[in-house]
Amino acid sequence: MIRAFETSKQAHQRHSDKAARTRDRILTLAAQAASVNGIGTLTIGGLASATGMSKSGLYVHFGSKEALQIALVDTIEKQFRKEVVGPVFAMPSGKDQLLEMMRLWIAWSQSPDRPGGCQLIAATFELDGLDGSVRDRLAKSIDAWRGAIRVLWNNGKPKGELRGLDAEQAASLAYGLYAAQHIERFLLHDQTAPERAMKLWKAAACR
Amino acid sequence: MIRAFETSKQAHQRHSDKAARTRDRILTLAAQAASVNGIGTLTIGGLASATGMSKSGLYVHFGSKEALQIALVDTIEKQFRKEVVGPVFAMPSGKDQLLEMMRLWIAWSQSPDRPGGCQLIAATFELDGLDGSVRDRLAKSIDAWRGAIRVLWNNGKPKGELRGLDAEQAASLAYGLYAAQHIERFLLHDQTAPERAMKLWKAAACR
Repeated sequence: MIRAFETSKQAHQRHSDKAARTRDRILTLAAQAASVNGIGTLTIGGLASATGMSKSGLYVHFGSKEALQIALVDTIEKQFRKEVVGPVFAMPSGKDQLLEMMRLWIAWSQSPDRPGGCQLIAATFELDGLDGSVRDRLAKSIDAWRGAIRVLWNNGKPKGELRGLDAEQAASLAYGLYAAQHIERFLLHDQTAPERAMKLWKAAACR
Repeated sequence: MIRAFETSKQAHQRHSDKAARTRDRILTLAAQAASVNGIGTLTIGGLASATGMSKSGLYVHFGSKEALQIALVDTIEKQFRKEVVGPVFAMPSGKDQLLEMMRLWIAWSQSPDRPGGCQLIAATFELDGLDGSVRDRLAKSIDAWRGAIRVLWNNGKPKGELRGLDAEQAASLAYGLYAAQHIERFLLHDQTAPERAMKLWKAAACR
């Protein structure tokens, strides 16, 4: 369309599309940085230095440090749904689905987009002693994924391929093995950690 | 002793004893604060505000932020040896020792001295993407405890009370269940988490 002929509504739409794309681009960069430095330490000033944008420009997009951090959790959760939740829930229920769940989850923490590992599990330990809206948003995210694991477990159970854990225990075991491989891989630089977590998950959860 | 009669060596000793006690007292306070706020974010300035001491006074004791954070890991590790490692290694090897290991470790994370939970596992996720001497000191500490779990496992193995995991798998499983209950308890406020971790450890590790 030739801009001279666009209506003011169309012009407004074009501007807000552009603003949304800019916002998405900033949040994608912020998510990478948070993989190394954490979510709770991200400030508008810090993001300004990292992106070369002005602080005032970033305030227009986010309004406050808390709003920025919450938008960041939204962005990371959206990526997680695309890379892990979606593909897993597209599979038939049962043992193979539960194994693929752990495989994709671990792969998520090893992605080149996350040079310092999974931002969500890191933020868990960063924010758990604090109060506030960012902590609450994160807890909602962790709770949702634990709930999804319980659903996968309960749906797979009637096939008789899973061990005698209840869904809550299965979610705790899965979270634990994920956390252990994260510690071993990123702090202790043990490259065998992901394979060990998969073996333990298979042995303790799936027949 | 009447001070007028003490030798200069004795006076020096008295001053350095006093300095050591002051340093210990500061580090005990710093360890409590780190349970909520983390180890990697602690600065000499922040500690000055928290203790009411002068920044220059704290510089005399620690010299730099990194030296302070390393001294803090030393202090926390010493507490961990006293509350967990010592009592566990005083027991005869076997299943009961491995169960008590997990029980004392979880109790450590729930102590009133640690209002925001275990400083060491939190620092793991805080520092794992970074370089430097504090990260290396922490990795040494985590590695030592994983090594201790492997020793407990190998010593208990001949009694036939433990499941068919190798020592490395047992250490990963133990770390994972510890991390899971920490996430559930401190982020999700689930008070049933410690008991679930104990049950999972018993079911997956001990016959």
